[in-house]
Amino acid sequence: MGQETDTVPRLWSATEALQKLRSRELTIEQYAASLLVRIKQRDDDVKAWAYLNPDAVMEQARALDKVPFQQRGPLHGLPVGIKDIILTKGKTTTTEFAFSFVGPATRNAHSANHTPGGSSSGSAAAVADFQIPIALGSQTKGSIVRPAAFNGVYGFKPTWQSITREGQKFCSPSVDTIGFFARSVADFELFADAFALNDYEESYFKEVKGSKFAVCKPVHWNMAGQGTREAMDKAVELLRAHGAQVEELDLGPDFEKVVEWLNLIVKLEGATSLVPEYLQAKEQMDTTLAKGVEERRSVSRKAQLQAYDGLAALRPRFDKLAEGYAAVLAPSVLDEAPEGLGNTGDPVFASTWTALHVPVMNIPGFRGKTDMPVGVSLVAARLRDRHLLKVCEAVGGIFEKEGGWNRE
Amino acid sequence: MGQETDTVPRLWSATEALQKLRSRELTIEQYAASLLVRIKQRDDDVKAWAYLNPDAVMEQARALDKVPFQQRGPLHGLPVGIKDIILTKGKTTTTEFAFSFVGPATRNAHSANHTPGGSSSGSAAAVADFQIPIALGSQTKGSIVRPAAFNGVYGFKPTWQSITREGQKFCSPSVDTIGFFARSVADFELFADAFALNDYEESYFKEVKGSKFAVCKPVHWNMAGQGTREAMDKAVELLRAHGAQVEELDLGPDFEKVVEWLNLIVKLEGATSLVPEYLQAKEQMDTTLAKGVEERRSVSRKAQLQAYDGLAALRPRFDKLAEGYAAVLAPSVLDEAPEGLGNTGDPVFASTWTALHVPVMNIPGFRGKTDMPVGVSLVAARLRDRHLLKVCEAVGGIFEKEGGWNRE
Repeated sequence: MGQETDTVPRLWSATEALQKLRSRELTIEQYAASLLVRIKQRDDDVKAWAYLNPDAVMEQARALDKVPFQQRGPLHGLPVGIKDIILTKGKTTTTEFAFSFVGPATRNAHSANHTPGGSSSGSAAAVADFQIPIALGSQTKGSIVRPAAFNGVYGFKPTWQSITREGQKFCSPSVDTIGFFARSVADFELFADAFALNDYEESYFKEVKGSKFAVCKPVHWNMAGQGTREAMDKAVELLRAHGAQVEELDLGPDFEKVVEWLNLIVKLEGATSLVPEYLQAKEQMDTTLAKGVEERRSVSRKAQLQAYDGLAALRPRFDKLAEGYAAVLAPSVLDEAPEGLGNTGDPVFASTWTALHVPVMNIPGFRGKTDMPVGVSLVAARLRDRHLLKVCEAVGGIFEKEGGWNRE
Repeated sequence: MGQETDTVPRLWSATEALQKLRSRELTIEQYAASLLVRIKQRDDDVKAWAYLNPDAVMEQARALDKVPFQQRGPLHGLPVGIKDIILTKGKTTTTEFAFSFVGPATRNAHSANHTPGGSSSGSAAAVADFQIPIALGSQTKGSIVRPAAFNGVYGFKPTWQSITREGQKFCSPSVDTIGFFARSVADFELFADAFALNDYEESYFKEVKGSKFAVCKPVHWNMAGQGTREAMDKAVELLRAHGAQVEELDLGPDFEKVVEWLNLIVKLEGATSLVPEYLQAKEQMDTTLAKGVEERRSVSRKAQLQAYDGLAALRPRFDKLAEGYAAVLAPSVLDEAPEGLGNTGDPVFASTWTALHVPVMNIPGFRGKTDMPVGVSLVAARLRDRHLLKVCEAVGGIFEKEGGWNRE
């Protein structure tokens, strides 16, 4: 990182900020103040925050500064953006119940005319815009991977059920997963430690050179736009240039219904999750959501069970395929962020991995035809989250440096 | 029901109470007061309540009485006991995080020397003791079926994921299910309506006569005591006496690991769910729970995935077996409630059905060798909850009348 990075707190990653706080180069109060200055400057353009009380932040920062160093936990003093479906204060925006695709007021960090993606819109935009080093989000279809790709940051959805989802508004508990946004893969390691995210077996990954990767074009690849097609080609080219072996992975016809099944489960479980809101305030709900609750009855029992059991049967099959590779490279989004704020974009590519419960990370580094960022995904088998972090750190370094898009 | 039932509000089922409220024979205030009198008389013996504020209850009752009849919802004025893992006030007791098997102070409604079972201890005891007509509980292994059987009431665990679990402390989200206790199957219909519990296909069940039932002795049947063995025999005899056909259903060796797999998943997910509490206040936790969090790392990745995928593969197979019958008869508990309050009993028999995500109900009506109640379970395929209610209403009428145990 350059000289500017060293002296401008908002440009630091979470890991760097914690180092500076620990070495007493900076107080928590100074760090929080510097982020609040950035938020104040940029909030009219980005609108990433659903709730933020600067006075409360500063008060808390001063209180945290008073805690003796030997009593501090590993993340002491680190500001985190929290998606507004999680029960806390100081929150980033989301779409209605993280469920709707109608855009919130938030804009893309790189263009006020482009959607930041959804539903973890504010978390991704705030991290991309250097307003916060790291943020929490959640993914039911593509709500971490997509906004991460659109805003040019890393977005990590761990293995389903590896982090508790308590205190979160439910969309679809069978697939809902809490995850993270950051501008550095190393920051995810901090959170993986804090959330006790384990692999239960050693990762054999050492470096890109000599490793075997798969490139997988999942269901609906035909929908991919120019930005994503070029990013995928460039990603394969870079991996090969750095000494990796890259093979095509064809999931075959048995995986063709994955997205359809996921969509059905999300619709059904979403209806169950929203019954209380529907009964109490139907008229205040997005009409699509209210209609979803009403339509649940129309899905046959057979179709529901087929979706659950079909996905469950495919999970170990994908694991087996993925275990042959350091990671599986896949598209994150259809293309760079679409123009306008009305719709947060299509989650179809990320959906496959959410449905299969596997860990997936968006890696930034590529450029679309209007110069907006495009990301690609790396995917691993279930419970290989720490392994995936290692691979993404190595691959991310390459893609960010040589992919053609630069955040700064 | 007898004359006493007509004039003593605490003896009414939820359905009866609502009828009386609707027909203006009684106010909500009068009904709530009569239950509070019962609770006051009995609380020293039963100790079913973790939190109860009689003044707040009466204030709320008076406020509800003021709501015009045409503005009232279907459950208006009905008091409900809520297990103390659900975010609300006015709560029945549970074991620590509904997870521990160390008994709370609560006693069995029929004997102060016997456990009420767990973890939904207070919900079952309060309903059995006529302190409340209906109560909410949750089941991760056998926490509805077991206390229902020990206290001689109906306990209903619906299909997994058919009712939202939002606002509940998690044990093991892959299997945790919210359910109900009542003294009448008809009361569950009220709640099934309120929670939009649907079957998505018509039930063909008409009456016990001419219907086909299975009797299934699941894994660890060899642990069953005399009370349960006699109850199962008597149940089969009564079904046959009422014109039903009863066949033995042997699940075969593929189902032998169901309970082992469930226990592993609960241990793993329990550890994930309790990480926040562990990090914040390890020293205040039950040592078994704290140890569970620490031991999670020792389970191999392969064993974890085998448990998830093994159970997922068995679910459609059990459905197919169960669909051939009106319901599957199975043991609820090892025997009548064990003496003492230290341990809430073994959930092994109910665990199979929780693991398979299927609906299960404890039907009371049988008597153990020390005259404590013993129940048996009826089980159906997934998403056949309303069908199961119909079958249980018919079968429950027979077992309660002719099974040999009487609540009053």
